[in-house]
Amino acid sequence: MDNERRWYEKAGEAGDVVVSTRVRLARNLRDIPFPSRMNAAQRAESERRVRDALFQSNSPIAGDFDFLQIDAMSEQQAGSLVEKHLISPQFAAHGKGRGVLISKDESISIMVNEEDHVRIQVLREGLALCETAETADRIDTLLNESLHFAFDEELGYLTQCPTNLGTGMRASVMLHLPALAERGALSRIVSNLSKLGLVTRGTYGEGTGITGAMVQLSNQITLGLSETEAVENLRNIAKQLVDAERESRAALLGQIRVQDRIARALGVLQTARLLSGEEFMRLSSEVRFGVTAGMLSGIDLADLNALTASVQPATLSAKAGKALSAEERDVLRAETVRKALRGVA
Amino acid sequence: MDNERRWYEKAGEAGDVVVSTRVRLARNLRDIPFPSRMNAAQRAESERRVRDALFQSNSPIAGDFDFLQIDAMSEQQAGSLVEKHLISPQFAAHGKGRGVLISKDESISIMVNEEDHVRIQVLREGLALCETAETADRIDTLLNESLHFAFDEELGYLTQCPTNLGTGMRASVMLHLPALAERGALSRIVSNLSKLGLVTRGTYGEGTGITGAMVQLSNQITLGLSETEAVENLRNIAKQLVDAERESRAALLGQIRVQDRIARALGVLQTARLLSGEEFMRLSSEVRFGVTAGMLSGIDLADLNALTASVQPATLSAKAGKALSAEERDVLRAETVRKALRGVA
Repeated sequence: MDNERRWYEKAGEAGDVVVSTRVRLARNLRDIPFPSRMNAAQRAESERRVRDALFQSNSPIAGDFDFLQIDAMSEQQAGSLVEKHLISPQFAAHGKGRGVLISKDESISIMVNEEDHVRIQVLREGLALCETAETADRIDTLLNESLHFAFDEELGYLTQCPTNLGTGMRASVMLHLPALAERGALSRIVSNLSKLGLVTRGTYGEGTGITGAMVQLSNQITLGLSETEAVENLRNIAKQLVDAERESRAALLGQIRVQDRIARALGVLQTARLLSGEEFMRLSSEVRFGVTAGMLSGIDLADLNALTASVQPATLSAKAGKALSAEERDVLRAETVRKALRGVA
Repeated sequence: MDNERRWYEKAGEAGDVVVSTRVRLARNLRDIPFPSRMNAAQRAESERRVRDALFQSNSPIAGDFDFLQIDAMSEQQAGSLVEKHLISPQFAAHGKGRGVLISKDESISIMVNEEDHVRIQVLREGLALCETAETADRIDTLLNESLHFAFDEELGYLTQCPTNLGTGMRASVMLHLPALAERGALSRIVSNLSKLGLVTRGTYGEGTGITGAMVQLSNQITLGLSETEAVENLRNIAKQLVDAERESRAALLGQIRVQDRIARALGVLQTARLLSGEEFMRLSSEVRFGVTAGMLSGIDLADLNALTASVQPATLSAKAGKALSAEERDVLRAETVRKALRGVA
């Protein structure tokens, strides 16, 4: 059963706190202008080259990928890829002539002609920075064999945006920190982390708020630091946060008002007939807390991860096969959640 | 099973809207001052005479009663009698030397030396004004055989407070009006009813707020109107409110947001670990609405009535056999409710 699941339907190392790990590499072709300055012919050329680099390689990895044309998709299907973090919102919004390579288990995506010519992205459940970085590196090496990415001995990889210059790497972990949030410790932590060259964001990247105590933590510095150092740095801090969060949870769980809140959150999710995405995130955060604490049984973290992915707005509409109104989505979300949480207690 | 239940653990006629009916008669002995002006000897004399009038009568009813001395009870036991509407809060608070006769099914109580020497009170589930008034009348007649209550040809029964002068009767029904409340129609109805000589109150009588859409409706006029007319008047208006409430419910139930609210109320009651009395009344009002509409199964109105009686604060403490803190009560209430609603869906 579990090996048929996609990465976001599993739970990994330190999965009680770390929901997922992501590494992305920004790369560009040498002799074609950056995407913002390309004409149609250059865009097609860039795309052809990247596809060939993968599909005409001798690597067995190649057979695992599909090439998806964004403008051949419905808005809901593209939106669903955004919700699964496989493409960026900007990429979906301006999909004309853009395509993405996605591995069958949806753990690897290669966006072509996003902000940079090539954006390699690897996702994994739980805390898995080393494995994820290694996989990204393998894809990078494979593509580089034929593409020879733009690289400067002084500056490193050249990227459209100077903040990516150097390693072109951004590594991030999605952390679930309900106990630290409850203790009011999050804002202090966020401000300390920025001094350490790390940046925190909400669930859906830059500019999105923190919902359901989900905090995305990523490296900010891409210059003057190797990929390994950056990953190591992030991993150490993630581990410290895992420890701090676990400690706070243990202290909170003895409190009846916390048990009450967790139990009620489950009760509402098991019965609601209308459920907004925001309320789902807030309540499922409590349920996730309850599951990790062993207070609730009948569901595990992998199930919760799969449920969370399945009830995102565009994913719901894509499943229904049509654009749903906000109320229709809330009805379908409530139905999906009730079914998934039946028997949990 | 059902015939072992007390009156407040059943559901009666029009029980979907009318929770209960109550009739009380205020009576006084001729040759003893009103209770507020009695000395200890007179108080004892009054009590002895009332007890004798019942227990030394030849009526088979007499064997059905117990005499309870308020100051022989714990605060919780007396409070529980208040919550079951068997004695008034004032009677419980100043219980020294006071006693009450209570029938085994707790549907009839006779307070001695409350505001008046004798307060006969009959309670019944559902809309049952005629039966309730008849029972009160039977008790009145029985006691009057030996007590010869103070009566004036012009004024009728003499009472301490002039608002009871005449029939000395107050009849009331407890209505559950969630749909009229939701439509915002309650305040208009309340103001119209006062023009018709009726008065509305919250769940626990004068000065208490309306919680969980429970409205107590009673006659105000005791002079210039026979008991029968007063009862008839109240019954007609109660029936009109029953019809209006049923109509509003039918209109509301088609709405998904109403179904959602009812379902969530059940969900919270089934899972909460802490539950205040106020929140229980609010949420159980929704559940009651859902049960009457056939939306929820696995519980009936009689069960809900029994549950409501069992989770009132003093009744909870009396059951636990000790004074409970507010939090201990909320824990015990939540536990009792979770158990009672298990399997309801």
